[in-house]
Amino acid sequence: MTKAVFYHAGCPVCVSAEQQLLGLLSQDVQVDVVHLGEKPARIAEAEKAGVQSVPALVVDGQVLHINYGAALADLKA
Amino acid sequence: MTKAVFYHAGCPVCVSAEQQLLGLLSQDVQVDVVHLGEKPARIAEAEKAGVQSVPALVVDGQVLHINYGAALADLKA
Repeated sequence: MTKAVFYHAGCPVCVSAEQQLLGLLSQDVQVDVVHLGEKPARIAEAEKAGVQSVPALVVDGQVLHINYGAALADLKA
Repeated sequence: MTKAVFYHAGCPVCVSAEQQLLGLLSQDVQVDVVHLGEKPARIAEAEKAGVQSVPALVVDGQVLHINYGAALADLKA
């Protein structure tokens, strides 16, 4: 079982990427979907993982930034 | 069976994304991996699909741009 975290902020580009990407993943991948707009307390965790923008998928400690969404800094405002 | 095309250019960021992302995908997803550096004739196809940078995954006519790789324009030089 591979564990992954999908960070997003509820923006249209995030939701679109989420639907597309998560639908493609193997059932062996357990994905924790985190809405940083609703859970700002997890922004620090995302930053520590190397997330620079959302949507992003973190797997095994590495970050895949998907499309061009919101910069993490914008979510702190 | 979902068909997807993964466009890349052989750069480290592309190879890393390819290994990570393709390893996560369901076995129901058939991925055509295209190295645009080796197959420049397919750049036009990628552009038509909406690819603006590589690495990118095109699924069902929609483009997921992964991380920050090379701009498509740079591959034409």
